[in-house]
Amino acid sequence: MGVYNFSAGPSVFFPEVLEQIRDQLIDYRGSGCSLLETSHRSPHYDAVHTRALTLLRELYHVPNNYSILFCTGGATQQFAMLVDNFLSQGGTALYVTTGAWGKKALEDAQVRSNAYPHARIIEQYCSDQFVSLPPSHVFKTVTDVKKKQGGNDTVYAHITSNETIHGVQYQAYPSSPVPLIADCSSDLLSRPINFEHLAMIYGGAQKNIGPAGVTVVIIHNALLEKASEVLPPAYSYKSFAKKKSLYNTPPVFAIWCLQLTLEHIKKKGGLSYISDHNAHKARLVYTVIDAFPDMYRCPAVPECRSNMNIVFTLPDATRDAMFLEQARSKGFIGLRGHRSVGGIRASLYNAMSIEGATALAEFMKEFARTYG
Amino acid sequence: MGVYNFSAGPSVFFPEVLEQIRDQLIDYRGSGCSLLETSHRSPHYDAVHTRALTLLRELYHVPNNYSILFCTGGATQQFAMLVDNFLSQGGTALYVTTGAWGKKALEDAQVRSNAYPHARIIEQYCSDQFVSLPPSHVFKTVTDVKKKQGGNDTVYAHITSNETIHGVQYQAYPSSPVPLIADCSSDLLSRPINFEHLAMIYGGAQKNIGPAGVTVVIIHNALLEKASEVLPPAYSYKSFAKKKSLYNTPPVFAIWCLQLTLEHIKKKGGLSYISDHNAHKARLVYTVIDAFPDMYRCPAVPECRSNMNIVFTLPDATRDAMFLEQARSKGFIGLRGHRSVGGIRASLYNAMSIEGATALAEFMKEFARTYG
Repeated sequence: MGVYNFSAGPSVFFPEVLEQIRDQLIDYRGSGCSLLETSHRSPHYDAVHTRALTLLRELYHVPNNYSILFCTGGATQQFAMLVDNFLSQGGTALYVTTGAWGKKALEDAQVRSNAYPHARIIEQYCSDQFVSLPPSHVFKTVTDVKKKQGGNDTVYAHITSNETIHGVQYQAYPSSPVPLIADCSSDLLSRPINFEHLAMIYGGAQKNIGPAGVTVVIIHNALLEKASEVLPPAYSYKSFAKKKSLYNTPPVFAIWCLQLTLEHIKKKGGLSYISDHNAHKARLVYTVIDAFPDMYRCPAVPECRSNMNIVFTLPDATRDAMFLEQARSKGFIGLRGHRSVGGIRASLYNAMSIEGATALAEFMKEFARTYG
Repeated sequence: MGVYNFSAGPSVFFPEVLEQIRDQLIDYRGSGCSLLETSHRSPHYDAVHTRALTLLRELYHVPNNYSILFCTGGATQQFAMLVDNFLSQGGTALYVTTGAWGKKALEDAQVRSNAYPHARIIEQYCSDQFVSLPPSHVFKTVTDVKKKQGGNDTVYAHITSNETIHGVQYQAYPSSPVPLIADCSSDLLSRPINFEHLAMIYGGAQKNIGPAGVTVVIIHNALLEKASEVLPPAYSYKSFAKKKSLYNTPPVFAIWCLQLTLEHIKKKGGLSYISDHNAHKARLVYTVIDAFPDMYRCPAVPECRSNMNIVFTLPDATRDAMFLEQARSKGFIGLRGHRSVGGIRASLYNAMSIEGATALAEFMKEFARTYG
């Protein structure tokens, strides 16, 4: 049965990319080997690695004074590495939490800061509801706290660009008086970024640009310069940058899948196409939510609504369950909300088609009319 | 052209496993999705994850009081995590270095220990030649130093089971008076292990059991118990163990490839088969080396010779180059020695066939006869 995969991650691939992977799985470009079994020091892999870096820079319009790194361990490992790299000699970091992932970033930073007596982690803003305040307010708080709490030793402020569990997303990045770092795990390459506002972004590939197993870091060289020199290579941004992310064996196959996905995005028209495509899909679903307020409720305030993860609830748990069951029977999978919040979550990442979003919207209309 | 892939890693796959991956690449078991796009919280992936853990335990005869974890970042990340987990509250670790990887493990541990004022890293034994002393001597040194240098606060001793660059391997593990930790990156599941001698082993999958991107850790629960409680989850063995390596998104696809490789090893007869198979292949090549001493020289002393990586040199660089060129033209790839030592290296990991090792041995004979 054909399915529409709304999973929050790992998540839907472009079918054309899956076909390329399959077709070259056993014999990569006539090398006689699969990329699964190809040395990371070989010319074949080097071309893939270099091309993936080039495509990231090109599609995202990453300025030349930023470095692009391939790490592993997902955003979770970045939560720890940020503190190792930037606060081990002391200093303050401000964390703005607008959802569960921002909260985890904060908590992990606090734990890691125990190793460094002069490191200070400040929770700048946190809403218990996560969704009650628009990003503009959060940004104002960033500015205020810098003066009041952070002081002159503030190394960075941290935000979460898109919150998968709570379905909220910064529509635009705030300009910040201190270097701003964004966890973009769930909206990486889903829209253009103005890097002027950001000293660093990071994110796992497994939502918008590839499989689980590779984490992209894009960092301004002035911030990179401040990273600790006394870290083991596995934790050191400087080591990743200096060795072109080839100090040790990178996740060769995952980076190849990422490269193929980026080629496909480029062919489709790059990030301006992708951004419109994503906004269009989200609009299709939010329109139905707003048209049937007695059936669907979206906890995110409209100006924070995510284009990536559309989170909503039905009037009661019984109807949530009925919705999920009927959706499943029609081939819509991965719609169950995160176990911490329940309800429904439709993830509409880059590779979700307009057709898939339209089919979901139609199903939602029909469901609301039948059971409303 | 068909090739024989002697790459040191990422390295040759079993062809049957590659075919299974290709055949199920787009539609995994009728799910309508690829495992590249399947949620790590789905029943499909859960079955893969659980099965991979079960197979590791079964094939390796891992006792029930050991935990098996899936990390990322390769052995290099383990070098740092060992210190975070076991020395952050203070204590001593002894490092036995028998090659370049042991040296890296030591150096990274030293760097990481800077973060912990009461941690002490002792280089217990290091040969500049790396290959001049048999493991039995090294083991004696382990015991001696424990009394003289390590003292009662010694948490662990560290060895490198197989050194890929220098081509030396412990033929048997020493029994150690302190918990012994082995980096088994390059001989993981290549032979049975007696876990009584080992408190922990770790290794990347990309040599013997799968693709780059997943790191296997097998740890005695008594040692796990001693791991730090105050680490961010990305660095914490306790977190990996408690959450069955599913705290955050694991490298889903890499673990699937690992599972399929383990299924194949099981089908072929498990580790007793694999161990004989590997010894047989190595013998084929070492026999030629020993038969033509004027052409081939193996720096490893016979009792330390690796069954995984056969390192040898020809009388001069010109003949090294001629050998590599002719080998390449006959479809033998990945034979160039590591850039730090030069010469030739033939890696004969689990998935290298007898046919491949035989063909290489025949080529070496012919080459020696022609140019000797």
